[in-house]
This record gives sequence, structure tokens and C-alpha cells, in this order.
Amino acid sequence: MNSYSSKLVENAVNELARLPGIGKKTALRLALHLLKKEDNVAESLGNSLIKMRSEIMFCTECFNISDSEICEICANPNRTKETICVVEDIRDVMAIENTGQYKGVYHILGGIISPMDGIGPNDLHIDSLINRVSQGNIQEVIMALSTTIEGDTTNFYIYKKLKDFKVTISTIARGIAIGDELEYTDEVTLGRSIINRMPYESTLSK
Amino acid sequence: MNSYSSKLVENAVNELARLPGIGKKTALRLALHLLKKEDNVAESLGNSLIKMRSEIMFCTECFNISDSEICEICANPNRTKETICVVEDIRDVMAIENTGQYKGVYHILGGIISPMDGIGPNDLHIDSLINRVSQGNIQEVIMALSTTIEGDTTNFYIYKKLKDFKVTISTIARGIAIGDELEYTDEVTLGRSIINRMPYESTLSK
Repeated sequence: MNSYSSKLVENAVNELARLPGIGKKTALRLALHLLKKEDNVAESLGNSLIKMRSEIMFCTECFNISDSEICEICANPNRTKETICVVEDIRDVMAIENTGQYKGVYHILGGIISPMDGIGPNDLHIDSLINRVSQGNIQEVIMALSTTIEGDTTNFYIYKKLKDFKVTISTIARGIAIGDELEYTDEVTLGRSIINRMPYESTLSK
Repeated sequence: MNSYSSKLVENAVNELARLPGIGKKTALRLALHLLKKEDNVAESLGNSLIKMRSEIMFCTECFNISDSEICEICANPNRTKETICVVEDIRDVMAIENTGQYKGVYHILGGIISPMDGIGPNDLHIDSLINRVSQGNIQEVIMALSTTIEGDTTNFYIYKKLKDFKVTISTIARGIAIGDELEYTDEVTLGRSIINRMPYESTLSK
């Protein structure tokens, strides 16, 4: 006898509760919601998860998630293959794609160097990035990692690996967010944004 | 071309986002979590949901969820079949079961009368409750619905239907929650708890 009255429900609740940010109470609410809905709601949810996990591929070029061997971005003839934007994970690709401002391709590291979590350079897709650059067609590598110690470490590690190749290495601009007020900006960001000031004319066309 | 880079992921995100309290961002986080984990995590989650929905039964006696035709509570020879506790849904059964204070059986209405939501008495398992009572073995019906207008309406509707049968109709006690301070209790609850005061001796054994 368990408090769920049903092994089937108990199983579903336990499985749902393994997802991040979902506890037993939320899991139960979701399970009961599925029980109230028609059969096909639970079925199509379940099948979509199984299908996604079993059929997903990772782009052999950039390690983006993909339905085929080469992802839609790498396969797109309108994207500049000479510029690679290096990001931590797939969500960063989505964030940058949503801006509509970037026309190059990506390289997804799958994480950042973080000794605290036991993640070293060999756990990330860094060798394959160097490989792509060494093939010679790349003009610029844009580092777009988080501004944390781990991000900076990873930036520097990759910079050291790439600096002997004939390639421009840049990072995305750090500074005061658009719409932010100076007095509430933290000192480090404000200080850096003064050091890295840019010609006023360059902002006019944005 | 969609911002998820993959139809498979987009499908899974859309399905997850149909669950209550889960938006597109959370759905994406869950989908990416499943992609990071081994195959079998997504598979066992998906299968448990499909299996739950397709194999679940509702107890023919009390409408509790069940793995068999009669639920574990109704089938338990140690429960008093003479007392029926009427609740709105399955979660209420779980809440009461968790107290360990109730040894009778249940009757799950599947909702409460709510004209605003278009739910009338015929949408609920009220007829089957009257049927159970009319068979004559029931001593007491305990109404355990929420203290809302809808709950009170449903209580009253059922009371009118049952009052001609030889059965005691009671409701669970309303009053100040254990541990609550008087000065923060709302007036209605406090007022009713004075009117419905109980002999001090009756609280001593609790």
C-alpha cells in the first residue's frame, strides 16, 4: 500500500521528480493532470521525449543538436563559414540566434573549464575547434562564454591554443546593458566599460 | 528553420510546455536535461507516462485511481465500509491518508459544483454516492470538501439528496489550524470557531 493508491502513478511521479526543479508535489500535480486529459496527451508527450532522445544527433561540425549529421546552421549556404562563435551550450546558440545579428557558424564546447566540477579541457570540444581552425578557412573566432572565472579561464585556454594560427580572436562586448542606469552598475563592469570605451560614431548606426 | 535547431527538440519542448505551470523556457531546460542524460532516462520517463495513462483504472466503488477494478482502500478488509468520506479529488485522498487518522472508505466526486466553470451535479459522481448510501450499509457520510462557496454548495446539494436516508452526515471540523495565532486568524474562521466551540475534554486525548 502506498499513498498514491497506484503503482502506475507512483512510477510516473518518481520519474517526473527526477527532472531538475521538479519535486514530488509538482510531479504528482503533473501526473494527475495527465490522468485528467485524454489518453493521447500523455502518449504524445511520452513518445516525443523518447523519440527526441533516441533520434537526436549532434552536428559533426559544431556539436549543435541536430536532426541530421550536419546541423541546419552549418548546412545553411547563407551563413559565413569563416566566422566561428564559441559558446558553452546549445541554449547560448538559441539566445544568439534569437538576436538575428549573427550570420556565422558556431562551435559548442559542451561546458566550460571548471576544476571545481572536475571539468577539464579534455572533457570539452576544444580539440575539434582547434582542428577546424587549423584547416585554414577560418577568419575569426568569437569567444562568447559567460563572464565568470570559469569562462575567463576557458577563453584564455582557447586563446593560447589558437594564437599561433592566422585567425582573429575576439570576445563579445562586455559593458553596461542597454537600458541600465550607471549608478546601479557594478564597479567592475563600469570600470571595464570605461577602459574599453568605443568611438561614439560606431554606436550611431545601431 | 526554427530556433531549436531540431524538430525533435521543438516537439518535445512543445509537448512539455502543455503541462500546467511549465512554460517554454522550463520545457527547454527539461528537454536539454534529458539530452544530457543517458538514453534510458528519457525512455523510462516517457514509458512510465504512457503506461500510467493507458493502464490506469478508476475504482468502480469510490472512483479512486487504481491498478485494478477495486482500489486498494476499498479492497482492504481492515477499513470500515460503513463510513464514507466524500472528497473532491484524488489528492484529497492522499492528504487524508497521510494523516493516518481515517479508517473508512472514500467517495471521489471528481470536482465540485461550480456554475462559473460549467460544472453541475451531473458532471460529478454524486448519483453513485447516493446509490452507495441507498444500499443501506452506510452509517456515516463525512463531507470533506474545500471551505469555498463551491464546496458549501456541493455540501448542501449532497446533504439534501441524502437527508432522507438513515445516515449521519457530518463535515470535517473547521477552525483555527494547530499552531496558528489568534490575532492573525481571519474573522470568519475565528467567529465560527467560537460558535462551534467544543468540550475541552474532547481535545485532551489528541
